[in-house]
Amino acid sequence: MAVYTEFNDEEFAAFMAGYDLGKAIAVKGIAEGVENSNYLLSTERGQFILTLYEKRVDPADLPFFLGLMEHLAGRGITCPLPVRSRAGSALGRLAGRPAAIVTFLSGLSVRRPRAEHCREVGAALAHLHLAGEGFPIRRANALSVRGWRPLFEACNGRADEVLPGLGDEVGRELSFLENRWPMDLPAGIIHADLFPDNVFFLGDRLSGLIDFYFACNDMLAYDVAIGINAWCFEPDASLNITKSQALLAGYTSVRPLGPPEAGALPLLCRGSALRFLLTRLYDWLTVPKGALVVPKDPVEYYKKLRFHRSVGDASAYGLDR
Amino acid sequence: MAVYTEFNDEEFAAFMAGYDLGKAIAVKGIAEGVENSNYLLSTERGQFILTLYEKRVDPADLPFFLGLMEHLAGRGITCPLPVRSRAGSALGRLAGRPAAIVTFLSGLSVRRPRAEHCREVGAALAHLHLAGEGFPIRRANALSVRGWRPLFEACNGRADEVLPGLGDEVGRELSFLENRWPMDLPAGIIHADLFPDNVFFLGDRLSGLIDFYFACNDMLAYDVAIGINAWCFEPDASLNITKSQALLAGYTSVRPLGPPEAGALPLLCRGSALRFLLTRLYDWLTVPKGALVVPKDPVEYYKKLRFHRSVGDASAYGLDR
Repeated sequence: MAVYTEFNDEEFAAFMAGYDLGKAIAVKGIAEGVENSNYLLSTERGQFILTLYEKRVDPADLPFFLGLMEHLAGRGITCPLPVRSRAGSALGRLAGRPAAIVTFLSGLSVRRPRAEHCREVGAALAHLHLAGEGFPIRRANALSVRGWRPLFEACNGRADEVLPGLGDEVGRELSFLENRWPMDLPAGIIHADLFPDNVFFLGDRLSGLIDFYFACNDMLAYDVAIGINAWCFEPDASLNITKSQALLAGYTSVRPLGPPEAGALPLLCRGSALRFLLTRLYDWLTVPKGALVVPKDPVEYYKKLRFHRSVGDASAYGLDR
Repeated sequence: MAVYTEFNDEEFAAFMAGYDLGKAIAVKGIAEGVENSNYLLSTERGQFILTLYEKRVDPADLPFFLGLMEHLAGRGITCPLPVRSRAGSALGRLAGRPAAIVTFLSGLSVRRPRAEHCREVGAALAHLHLAGEGFPIRRANALSVRGWRPLFEACNGRADEVLPGLGDEVGRELSFLENRWPMDLPAGIIHADLFPDNVFFLGDRLSGLIDFYFACNDMLAYDVAIGINAWCFEPDASLNITKSQALLAGYTSVRPLGPPEAGALPLLCRGSALRFLLTRLYDWLTVPKGALVVPKDPVEYYKKLRFHRSVGDASAYGLDR
């Protein structure tokens, strides 16, 4: 949530000269996304987002991310569309960083989603899964089951600093999920980070999806599980089944979940909760005190994980069979 | 350079309902200003800046700041114009903070000003000084000569951590300026922080002035001295006399400097350099390591201060007599 890289007048003018966007009218660094530097760019042709990709993004992944947005936008998903330069490239360089300009999407993210929002998000996620078919580049999910143990080990046994006993419990959960993680569910392009921050609404209608920088190839139902964790819990980390029912109804109205996917849902929710627990735990233990990016509380996802462990089958989320 | 306060959907909707701006289309936290939380707000009526005033701003000063922008905008200065609510107030509350909406100004700030920019800034500063006449509220300059010693003392004798010998030298400079500081030059409303960040251009033409949150009543020529320090030095802290000549020519083309003002200019430049040296020194010594707001280098202003001490009279800045 910050601007990490700034640029001077000459390099910005040279960068803009490569695009057919007219003169720049305003450029403001915006506090959106935690990985990259984002600027709201107004030109004679309209509004855009200019992104400078920072160190945590692998430049080798950029053709995937930019190509995916172009692929999805071309199939009716309201997501940022990369603007190609006069030379035909979606990826440029500014201030020594890889940089891209994408279209600006109207809409506001909701901080306290209601069931109507959850239904819209479920449907949008299914549309995204269908629209992802045929996208030719592949990107493995670095934060799926094989990535969790290295992350846990990078926490150096310090999990109990957050909550006594947490280290043992996470270790057991990790072993359990490593043994049981499904491998043969329908797979494709997933967003993998569809939190309320990344979804815009105008009124109660969904108006856009942003931030495709965790998108990858993985099981589609895993994305649904991420959605349940991100949208359907109350601030006290209790599931609101009206919301999860709405999210699932929205999803299945567009793309039905097969019986193996429905059966695996509680396990996928556990895995998704563990994934966010682990990344938050790692950030919590490593972000320097006093930094303006306040790390998010890992305990929230520990509570969600415990809930999912108590679940018998997908009816606990309100999935209609 | 961050968003400190966020708000939820309900409180934002209630806040917006008080204004006649139509529906909100987008709200983005922007990395502008270091004191307050700023959002770029797009509505059906256009673009605006929404500011939530944080702890470092005294709420008692807000009628001065908002009233001043309204006063200046009504006299032809291109500055943000506070939008009044349906109830007629320029000041509201959001998320427990005083909050205001002001108009959005087009333009880009320059990172490496050229002489053309300096001339425009000089003229704009003089127009601002003239337009400030008749503004009925007064606000003392807390960062003028009487505020410097408390700031120096708050550094607790740690100046030498930045540069050996700096503490003694600052102490001597402080005593010198306290004895010689002029008190009887023409006074009025000054901007007091007209750095390149706070001035927008479209091409080489100045298109707007922002950030009036240091504005106050003080000697007008002191604002000119701040401008020279902020705009006319090269990155190695050497004066570029072409730029200072341009700034002064721009200023005097609108408002001539009287002989007492011209005579005091080197002293006012010393004082202004000391003021920014002291605030930077204090921030340098107190901002926690790892914070995303990187404190600015105090040594830059120490070098500028040394330059001004070597100056005989205002001709060193290229002032035509």
